[in-house]
Amino acid sequence: MNLRQTILLFLCKEILCYNFTTKYIEVPVDHFSFSNNATFKLKYLINDSFWIDDGPVFFYTGNEGNIENFAENSGFMFDIAPTFNALLVFAEHRYYGTSLPFGNASFTSIEHLGYLTANQALADYVFLISYLQTVYSKSEYLDKVPVVAFGGSYGGMLATWLRMKYPASVIGAIAASAPIWQFQGLTPCENFNRIVTDVYKIANEEDCSVPLQKSWKIIRNLTTSDDGKNWLTNQWKLCNPLKTQEDIEKLIQWFSGILVNIVMVNYPYPTTFLAPLPAYPVKVFCNKLTDIENVDDKTLLTAVGTALEVYTNYTQKTKCNNINQTAADLGEKGWDFQACTEMIMPMCSDDNDMFENNAWDFNKYAQECYKKWGIQQLRADLPILEFGGKDIGSASNIVFSNGLSDPWSSGGVLANISSTVFAVIIPEGAHHLDLRGENKDDPQSVIDARRFHTQNIKTWITEYYFLRDKNFFKKFHFYERVTYEH
Amino acid sequence: MNLRQTILLFLCKEILCYNFTTKYIEVPVDHFSFSNNATFKLKYLINDSFWIDDGPVFFYTGNEGNIENFAENSGFMFDIAPTFNALLVFAEHRYYGTSLPFGNASFTSIEHLGYLTANQALADYVFLISYLQTVYSKSEYLDKVPVVAFGGSYGGMLATWLRMKYPASVIGAIAASAPIWQFQGLTPCENFNRIVTDVYKIANEEDCSVPLQKSWKIIRNLTTSDDGKNWLTNQWKLCNPLKTQEDIEKLIQWFSGILVNIVMVNYPYPTTFLAPLPAYPVKVFCNKLTDIENVDDKTLLTAVGTALEVYTNYTQKTKCNNINQTAADLGEKGWDFQACTEMIMPMCSDDNDMFENNAWDFNKYAQECYKKWGIQQLRADLPILEFGGKDIGSASNIVFSNGLSDPWSSGGVLANISSTVFAVIIPEGAHHLDLRGENKDDPQSVIDARRFHTQNIKTWITEYYFLRDKNFFKKFHFYERVTYEH
Repeated sequence: MNLRQTILLFLCKEILCYNFTTKYIEVPVDHFSFSNNATFKLKYLINDSFWIDDGPVFFYTGNEGNIENFAENSGFMFDIAPTFNALLVFAEHRYYGTSLPFGNASFTSIEHLGYLTANQALADYVFLISYLQTVYSKSEYLDKVPVVAFGGSYGGMLATWLRMKYPASVIGAIAASAPIWQFQGLTPCENFNRIVTDVYKIANEEDCSVPLQKSWKIIRNLTTSDDGKNWLTNQWKLCNPLKTQEDIEKLIQWFSGILVNIVMVNYPYPTTFLAPLPAYPVKVFCNKLTDIENVDDKTLLTAVGTALEVYTNYTQKTKCNNINQTAADLGEKGWDFQACTEMIMPMCSDDNDMFENNAWDFNKYAQECYKKWGIQQLRADLPILEFGGKDIGSASNIVFSNGLSDPWSSGGVLANISSTVFAVIIPEGAHHLDLRGENKDDPQSVIDARRFHTQNIKTWITEYYFLRDKNFFKKFHFYERVTYEH
Repeated sequence: MNLRQTILLFLCKEILCYNFTTKYIEVPVDHFSFSNNATFKLKYLINDSFWIDDGPVFFYTGNEGNIENFAENSGFMFDIAPTFNALLVFAEHRYYGTSLPFGNASFTSIEHLGYLTANQALADYVFLISYLQTVYSKSEYLDKVPVVAFGGSYGGMLATWLRMKYPASVIGAIAASAPIWQFQGLTPCENFNRIVTDVYKIANEEDCSVPLQKSWKIIRNLTTSDDGKNWLTNQWKLCNPLKTQEDIEKLIQWFSGILVNIVMVNYPYPTTFLAPLPAYPVKVFCNKLTDIENVDDKTLLTAVGTALEVYTNYTQKTKCNNINQTAADLGEKGWDFQACTEMIMPMCSDDNDMFENNAWDFNKYAQECYKKWGIQQLRADLPILEFGGKDIGSASNIVFSNGLSDPWSSGGVLANISSTVFAVIIPEGAHHLDLRGENKDDPQSVIDARRFHTQNIKTWITEYYFLRDKNFFKKFHFYERVTYEH
């Protein structure tokens, strides 16, 4: 690392990093027909502190939420930007954050909402990338700067698909915890919840999944009476009293949703991604469920209620729990629509996991989607037709990373696909841990994964400059640095 | 070739080939949003005479016209079907032939017409392929039969893009005379007309482009008077008398359009693709323009008028020439819209070709498109953003073939791209001659090109069966035949 980079990296830790300017670009609402001429403002965040000359663009393909939240939790991109002289860009996904194609009316009808699709989002990104390449290609030696896609979770799926569908726009993709195979016929629906269960099983000495597994029946039994409903409302500090059977179903969903979320963000140090949380939150959670093997029902639920506060009230500022919400910053409404259209991800539970048994029932799911969104014909094969399912052998320049303690690894790519499409496993890793910035508590496996990412990015970029930059050999010291350092 | 194949090939020549059943499939009008639920019937032609077991599907990606016309002029697919036990399918492009998303109202407004895009057509094909794979995968050893895309001209562009965008749907593409680079900034606009001119220059001993080059000015001068207009109307047997300046512009367009068309279909034997024509029509045309070096203007135009009948009246049945039409079977209205939206292909003429000088004027073009279709913002970069322009290095399994006497070769891929994306040159070839059936008058170069296509298809298919078919080794004789014969 040279002096400039060392200084930048120091400043980064103190001032520059995680700072960005908010900008907007006017994009078409519909990239795939000429029937609708409307446009809207897509938000993106940009940081050019590290950018020099023809340095690459590191482009985060935003997912289901405010883009700021993803930018703030993708420190890896900031960490490596100085090495590459990279421009950092984080693009917000349409229909999330403030990137609403029809403003406040975006969710009012299927006519407005219908343009919320992965393909339209990809086309937004291609549009923005093309614009950035016009603005940020200052050299006479290169007609456009290279762009590397980054993304985590659904954002990682988008990074993958961006590379697959638009290889001329991005030279490669780092796809962290991207469950591109969590679709019908590609992955057994029970895998996800089994991974969640396994994480609870081994979080501390006792098997913490046992009391959790018991709790569903207890909740069901207890809440058959009004007394029980009131007791649980108070004990678990719910904002609105449990009254109907529907409330109970919502409670069960909220509870299991939190159990999943804690596992997803089971990071080795305190974080605030889905909620403010301590280091290793699953362990902290499970530590509150020790010695309750033979307790009565209410004692068990009381303990579980206390444990849940690890997720709901780590800051001690939460007054009550709103069971209609699990992750405040994620655009749940938009995702719910996507889950009813393109992103139908079959999930189920059986006796081999700690959740209530719940078979995958496509027809029931379709009925609910119809009720919620008026969608007539649910097509679970859509993402497979569009993105190829398991037939991704002709893709190139993608790194899929997956933490094995992340339930989404169930739908991830866990083995190398070809000589340029790799799978990286992070045994201790939670959901896209590798996209987060360096931390002294990082396990070695995530350090290795990040090094692998960097090495691949170097390969892609060096190859690009070698083939494209007419001045490559004159500027060789630059590429040498890119190639051999960090 | 074994007995079955020999018999089939014999029958093919007599009965089976070029026969097909017409079918329809219900496809979404809009594949890329959920705002429009409408569907329509897409036509396709199917021939299963040669199909056995898990044989591949040879899938023609229909272009701008009735699909029957393309099927009847793609004899190569029929010729090689017996060798591969292939199912033949020819899919009609939406908004052409009878595949009209809104029936008679399809062209009435931009709201209806707006779904006429290459991407929507590709998605139609993916939809149909998926359906065919469900119906025609009868073996327990293979989850889906392999599909090879074929296409000529715009159909070849679609075959290319189908492979590039949906590699899980087609294992490879034969893209004949596909001008995927005939877009802004990729190809000099004058190349096309220079190739046309070159073909006229060398058609016979005299340089036939000379009288043609003279004729534009003569037409302009002559038609300044009503007498001249009447004379030319009669001499060239126009259906409607020339009256206005607009009529003269139309005449010039019609005339130059025919000059281009004759070159495109300058096949070595009589054909009926764009019009009924003799073998080597350019030569026949030019033979009518000999010894006119020093004749007066009217004699020259008279000779040109007679020459034009090679194209307009080879059957001697045409009563008059309708200058609003150049190729009856092609859906000109639809293509005109596409040329104003995604398929903006800059063309120009200068002193180095035989046409009237005509600079490429994007603004003028945009104005005309606005006048005709109400399209507000013309975006010449659309196809480049969508399909990558010259950055196609990550594509695989495509053969681009181009005849050098085909003007569309100006926008074609003329050099190999990678170890699986090849360019085949047919020096004597007109527009997608290689897709036509065997003919005793074929030049050796097209025979070689077809052999190269077949060899590539064998490679793709063998690799597919090897990787996918659980029974590959038991059925090895089958693949052996596929691999080593023909």
